[in-house]
Amino acid sequence: MGVMTDMAELPPEPSGWLSDRELQHVRRELPLLYVNVVPVRLDASGQVAEIGLLLRADDDAIHRALIAGRVLYHERIRDALIRHIEKDLGGVALPRIPASPTPFTVAEYFPTAGVTPFHDSRQHAVALAYVVPVDGDCEPRQNALDIVWITPEEAASEEVLRDMTGGQDTLLRQALAFCGVLP
Amino acid sequence: MGVMTDMAELPPEPSGWLSDRELQHVRRELPLLYVNVVPVRLDASGQVAEIGLLLRADDDAIHRALIAGRVLYHERIRDALIRHIEKDLGGVALPRIPASPTPFTVAEYFPTAGVTPFHDSRQHAVALAYVVPVDGDCEPRQNALDIVWITPEEAASEEVLRDMTGGQDTLLRQALAFCGVLP
Amino acid sequence: MGVMTDMAELPPEPSGWLSDRELQHVRRELPLLYVNVVPVRLDASGQVAEIGLLLRADDDAIHRALIAGRVLYHERIRDALIRHIEKDLGGVALPRIPASPTPFTVAEYFPTAGVTPFHDSRQHAVALAYVVPVDGDCEPRQNALDIVWITPEEAASEEVLRDMTGGQDTLLRQALAFCGVLP
Amino acid sequence: MGVMTDMAELPPEPSGWLSDRELQHVRRELPLLYVNVVPVRLDASGQVAEIGLLLRADDDAIHRALIAGRVLYHERIRDALIRHIEKDLGGVALPRIPASPTPFTVAEYFPTAGVTPFHDSRQHAVALAYVVPVDGDCEPRQNALDIVWITPEEAASEEVLRDMTGGQDTLLRQALAFCGVLP
Repeated sequence: MGVMTDMAELPPEPSGWLSDRELQHVRRELPLLYVNVVPVRLDASGQVAEIGLLLRADDDAIHRALIAGRVLYHERIRDALIRHIEKDLGGVALPRIPASPTPFTVAEYFPTAGVTPFHDSRQHAVALAYVVPVDGDCEPRQNALDIVWITPEEAASEEVLRDMTGGQDTLLRQALAFCGVLP
Repeated sequence: MGVMTDMAELPPEPSGWLSDRELQHVRRELPLLYVNVVPVRLDASGQVAEIGLLLRADDDAIHRALIAGRVLYHERIRDALIRHIEKDLGGVALPRIPASPTPFTVAEYFPTAGVTPFHDSRQHAVALAYVVPVDGDCEPRQNALDIVWITPEEAASEEVLRDMTGGQDTLLRQALAFCGVLP
Repeated sequence: MGVMTDMAELPPEPSGWLSDRELQHVRRELPLLYVNVVPVRLDASGQVAEIGLLLRADDDAIHRALIAGRVLYHERIRDALIRHIEKDLGGVALPRIPASPTPFTVAEYFPTAGVTPFHDSRQHAVALAYVVPVDGDCEPRQNALDIVWITPEEAASEEVLRDMTGGQDTLLRQALAFCGVLP
Repeated sequence: MGVMTDMAELPPEPSGWLSDRELQHVRRELPLLYVNVVPVRLDASGQVAEIGLLLRADDDAIHRALIAGRVLYHERIRDALIRHIEKDLGGVALPRIPASPTPFTVAEYFPTAGVTPFHDSRQHAVALAYVVPVDGDCEPRQNALDIVWITPEEAASEEVLRDMTGGQDTLLRQALAFCGVLP
């Protein structure tokens, strides 16, 4: 079971895109391109005040997760970011997609544990990770039970980090470090 | 004559800060810390649509300039960014100060031409350079005659770049490159 | 004809990886993950002294190219960088793979021209782009006719840039901007 | 007592630079520009294998420290990096100064605790922070008792971090996060 179970449930794709069965096959043949998003609330000076984490029910446990999803054929990364943020936070979150295409880090999820800090048993996924400020109202969608906003201190606490899977606890702390708010 | 003439005209500082005469002296003894800002308008997907350039009258020529200014004692870089943007674009520009403190580049202005691409005859200034999206209304203040919004294509044109001094033409193109819109 | 023709000619892959025919199919279904490398020679202070460009014969024209190639299933990006550098510069180039996984930019090559500055008629490829210093001897391999080392000034000249295809001229200037040596 | 006590003890400067007494005065009037360096050993794939920490005796305690020092008038940041690395690691450390001038973060040391994660009771110092691979032999110089090489896991341990002062424990973890090796 992988951290990104939700990503299998993609919105319907135009014909010409991979069927579920084909995707299943390709997942053992190619690294798939993903985006990871750490949604944040900023104060007036641009400093991170809160981080938004999704609550997901997965199998028989509840865990916290970042926004994550696949980049589709002929989709710009910017558009993939918007699509996945909308999927998880709703249509009025008002995300501020960064001007620069450079991610703050690249998370390489391997099907084999231990090669990198990131693990996804289903596939080899390479995720470009972005911090995205959101200004609007967020409401959980699809298979997220809730979205919880917590401070950087709370986000870096043992209690929160142990509820994250696949290495997303590391990715979250990398985002805090990038924003200068790693406690 | 340097590109950052305006920066000498700082807002009144609390007592304890340097007098003009002391600043004059220190300028030949220490590198001074500056910020440079490239103000941009973003489209809905976060891509740079327009860049804002200041028009300044300097001596007997008019040139185009980026926002620039000194970081004061006990001032956070975030607060220096806000102060200088407000100084040049007015109080309702609604700047989006970046979450991360990492600049897109560092511009080292030397009093001697040719050491780096950046030159300021008055001083050795090291500027942390940021791209800052602004959402609100901008109106020129202080010694800016006007602020003009131009596309990335226009910004990279010979015509615009030759009106910039001190190496700010290079800095502008570095900003376009960072945002993935260098024509 | 695409800029990355050479990338189709991958070294033999372990069984389990995609056949040429499958790859052909997948290319119209998924964005493929690539790396782009700008090889550089640094002076003692770390400043870029020279950039290495490959000369390639393609169809009936000769063009200049950056190092580029696909990331394979279960391959770390670091290992893909080493493999492709070795493929193009030989086994004694002594590349200095960066400590950070963050690319200096992400180049999105679309099969449709004009969506981004990058174009590859064969596929939708997303390339993580890195500047990699090399210390050793480089000799052209595989389908590169030669490798030529030129200064940043030469690299940014009209003459050099027009010999590059698929938007790699833009990527090269982005690399120069990132390194602070855009003329 | 400040983390950067050692930085007061600068090598003799050419005449024209600030006297100790002047520097003392300026320290209460202007932010001073510093560099911070995290020296690392890389494995063949560029991944951080070890981090070098200085052991310093300060007052009556021993603490661990990163390389730090002031940028002088008319000195390029690259040259300041080389000078301070040489000062602390000796002349045959063979540092690999990064090609890009962009630091991985900016650490703002305030004389008042709590404004930022960084604190220096003597002054307001703004440090551009770089990860610098070193290939050669390192031997402690000046007021460093020793230099110790430890793994990323050890570097992020409570035991090591609590021996660092002024917020350098945070800076060290930011460096690990930037390099993708935050445990």
